[in-house]
Amino acid sequence: MTAAQLWDRYRRYLCRCDELGLSLDISRMRFEDDFFDRMAPSMAKAYADMKALESGAIANPDEQRMVGHYWLRAPELAPSPEIRAAIEEAVVSIKTFVNEIHAGERRPEREALFTDVLLIGIGGSALGPQFIADALGEPRLDRMNMHFFDNTDPDGMDRVLQRIGERLSSTLCLIISKSGGTAETRNGMLVARKAYEDQGLSFAAHSVAITGAGSKLDKLASEEQWLARFPMWDWVGGRTSVMAAVGLLPAALQGIDIDELLEGAALCDRYTRSEDTFANPAALLALMWHFGCDGKGSKDMVLLPYKDRLVLFSRYLQQLIMESLGKAEDLDGERVEQGITVYGNKGSTDQHAYVQQLRDGVRNFFVTFVDVIQSGGEMVEVEPGVTSGDYLHGFLLGTRQALYESGRDSMTLSIDIVDEKRVGALIALFERAVGFYASLVNINAYHQPGVEAGKKAAAAVLSLRSRILDELGKSAQPRTAEQLAESLGALDQIELIHKQLEYLSANYPGVVAEAGSTPFDAAYSRV
Amino acid sequence: MTAAQLWDRYRRYLCRCDELGLSLDISRMRFEDDFFDRMAPSMAKAYADMKALESGAIANPDEQRMVGHYWLRAPELAPSPEIRAAIEEAVVSIKTFVNEIHAGERRPEREALFTDVLLIGIGGSALGPQFIADALGEPRLDRMNMHFFDNTDPDGMDRVLQRIGERLSSTLCLIISKSGGTAETRNGMLVARKAYEDQGLSFAAHSVAITGAGSKLDKLASEEQWLARFPMWDWVGGRTSVMAAVGLLPAALQGIDIDELLEGAALCDRYTRSEDTFANPAALLALMWHFGCDGKGSKDMVLLPYKDRLVLFSRYLQQLIMESLGKAEDLDGERVEQGITVYGNKGSTDQHAYVQQLRDGVRNFFVTFVDVIQSGGEMVEVEPGVTSGDYLHGFLLGTRQALYESGRDSMTLSIDIVDEKRVGALIALFERAVGFYASLVNINAYHQPGVEAGKKAAAAVLSLRSRILDELGKSAQPRTAEQLAESLGALDQIELIHKQLEYLSANYPGVVAEAGSTPFDAAYSRV
Repeated sequence: MTAAQLWDRYRRYLCRCDELGLSLDISRMRFEDDFFDRMAPSMAKAYADMKALESGAIANPDEQRMVGHYWLRAPELAPSPEIRAAIEEAVVSIKTFVNEIHAGERRPEREALFTDVLLIGIGGSALGPQFIADALGEPRLDRMNMHFFDNTDPDGMDRVLQRIGERLSSTLCLIISKSGGTAETRNGMLVARKAYEDQGLSFAAHSVAITGAGSKLDKLASEEQWLARFPMWDWVGGRTSVMAAVGLLPAALQGIDIDELLEGAALCDRYTRSEDTFANPAALLALMWHFGCDGKGSKDMVLLPYKDRLVLFSRYLQQLIMESLGKAEDLDGERVEQGITVYGNKGSTDQHAYVQQLRDGVRNFFVTFVDVIQSGGEMVEVEPGVTSGDYLHGFLLGTRQALYESGRDSMTLSIDIVDEKRVGALIALFERAVGFYASLVNINAYHQPGVEAGKKAAAAVLSLRSRILDELGKSAQPRTAEQLAESLGALDQIELIHKQLEYLSANYPGVVAEAGSTPFDAAYSRV
Repeated sequence: MTAAQLWDRYRRYLCRCDELGLSLDISRMRFEDDFFDRMAPSMAKAYADMKALESGAIANPDEQRMVGHYWLRAPELAPSPEIRAAIEEAVVSIKTFVNEIHAGERRPEREALFTDVLLIGIGGSALGPQFIADALGEPRLDRMNMHFFDNTDPDGMDRVLQRIGERLSSTLCLIISKSGGTAETRNGMLVARKAYEDQGLSFAAHSVAITGAGSKLDKLASEEQWLARFPMWDWVGGRTSVMAAVGLLPAALQGIDIDELLEGAALCDRYTRSEDTFANPAALLALMWHFGCDGKGSKDMVLLPYKDRLVLFSRYLQQLIMESLGKAEDLDGERVEQGITVYGNKGSTDQHAYVQQLRDGVRNFFVTFVDVIQSGGEMVEVEPGVTSGDYLHGFLLGTRQALYESGRDSMTLSIDIVDEKRVGALIALFERAVGFYASLVNINAYHQPGVEAGKKAAAAVLSLRSRILDELGKSAQPRTAEQLAESLGALDQIELIHKQLEYLSANYPGVVAEAGSTPFDAAYSRV
């Protein structure tokens, strides 16, 4: 296209949400002019599906659940007075609790004030809080320091505890698990509990639970009289729970304005309820995803925000998008193997990493640039009249142009500034784009059957491990993996038994290995 | 395959490097038995190319350069006594300097001891150091705290300076740029300089340059008598410079044993020089990449280390692999558009993010698990006889099995522990796999023409910006983007001019916008 044609296309398709300080430029995606007409019937269905979802339909048929994350920032839209009241009361109780913590009215056992937060959660219970904490944190101004256990790595948890160091006695611990039974989170809780108890501190006196009513975690917190409990509801999925207590409580503790976060999301929701597709940035995003990957994940989505604060956005979106859209079957039970792969860190840093491949190599992606209009930071001149922020912006525009010239597609999402309102809006924007896209390709975006299967596979591994340990205990005679597999009647699991034995001999006190002529002939015993 | 067949396949193909405590299991990649025979001639060429490269051939023909990163850990193999001496002297001078810093023999202007390091670099001058710092850092034991400017975001740099806070007066600043002219790094240096000077501190008295002899940065550091200068050589590429001063100096300052890092890399190099493919993990990796993505990047490489310390490994590999392999043309000048996309964070965290898609969704990837055999951390029982590390290992094995059962391929790279030796080995392993793979697909892995093009595009954007500012200065009359483009004789850049005007009115003091009937009719002036 000529420059004049590109300028026309830019003006024609630019979607601005002025009240939100957000705009979406799709002009550098090479769709044909009739694309939107062709997609109009599918998009009409997506609007209808979304309307039904927002009205309280069972939008997650597998789990027979409503999907209510949009109500979290507009409780007046909730389908029942009970749900509305639950949302409103939760926000009030979060604010009250946080004020008491900040004011020292609720204080740790031995100190005058809580100074740090240790959030223990994984997946939807960590990625949103981590994104918000990093996007909106201000080291000089934050009310509390944020730390995370987001895995079941003992060494990783040790390092976090080392960083907290002596401030553990003034650290507030948030345990977040919707089901109350997530293994990684349970393990993290037990490791943290031991750390407190090793210092003679009561774990309960430093802890808060965010979980479903009546869950194992909820019962524990109630029995032990933890500092507080906040709700999770079955109509909010983990990956869309960041506007519930999961995201709001840690944000408020850090000193982030949660009203603004909710307001930005609510405002974005109002824009993205419009059925005028060209004025609806979530609809445009979903349609561009469909165009960009042929409605079947044939291309990856590279997310390139030119702003350090947004470096965790792609990790957040990996879950939101890939866990929602990566599905084997569609709603009619047809095998479709859907999804869209998401990756990216930040510009211009990534220009010095993989942008070489984007420009010259495999054409297996489309880019979403995120442009933050206000530079922020101190204005330091690096050349007369030029700041480092001007370079950042220049690199974005230059890379967008260079990609276009080499035939690669991109979109540009612009926001005025990274603040509470805009972060709320970004989250809401992608939540709804995911919902629309799921309708376009006819899948359930709100379940995650593969995650459950992974948990079952791991449980089988751990149960085999315990059988191996038992079997080792039965005889002092060193035995090979094959011999043990035979004794266990589990020759069909021989490889797994071998791998477990290697692991056990490195980690489990008393399990020893005697070298054989090959690694597979090593003999194991328990002493 | 049956369990017995899988066990046979596992035993047959497992590549163990016992002295290194590293092994590679390729049994769950579904190659046919004749795959290695078919690839043998290509692999023979790859071995020959690598031998020539290590002997000092011009392995980067575009830039007419030798490719010498393997000599950094085996200086005795360098092709000339001068290069050997340069490498050895650099290591000695790094150790001497670091000892002096740690002992307080070289001290900051106003304090007794340097406590913090601020590393300013981007791409190859940051990703390696960041990976090493995070993989090997021990908050309780590290000799110095590490901080990074790895972008040109003023707000991002402000946040780093806020975190350093009052310790700036005891912060040692490392400015790393091979060419000495990287814009982001130059900008970072100027922002840091101002921060020191704002506190009345001499920047030179806190700064060290790592750069090519005679570069702009080298001259500046020499003129201003910075604390020290360390060399970069034209025969070491940025993305393979982590075993040169670029990686060794910050690592040594942090307290990491750089002899062990070099020894691990050297030992891995010895294993991977073997022309017995089945005993050479780098050759196997390269061949599996070729199998996994049909030798043309048709699938993505997902990197899943089950260890918090390795979370930055995939970001490091994004550069090493994608910048090396993402090329438009092969060595014969044929258009090939090569590359392999890399992404991933860590397990089991990612199981709660995108593994749903891996298991059920688009089949556009193969996985590389990294298994760390020793759990590390404190042994906290989470169930009788079970630790959180057992869960971590169980999740890896479970996910590997679940992926296999749903027809997705994976490899597993195992290391005994994350320590200096193993981190050195991992880096060396992937460096050589990249070299081999480049030979297999006949490309130059050692240049980056697309990065240069991106820099030129950005320079054009910045030069247009300055012309816009000049033009605005010529008349007080508010003008639209179109009018300004016309005055500048740059109607072919109208869209870019419009975007720049929106940016300038938000950031440049004195540039103001008057709203028009549409955003494209806004009129701009300079007051």
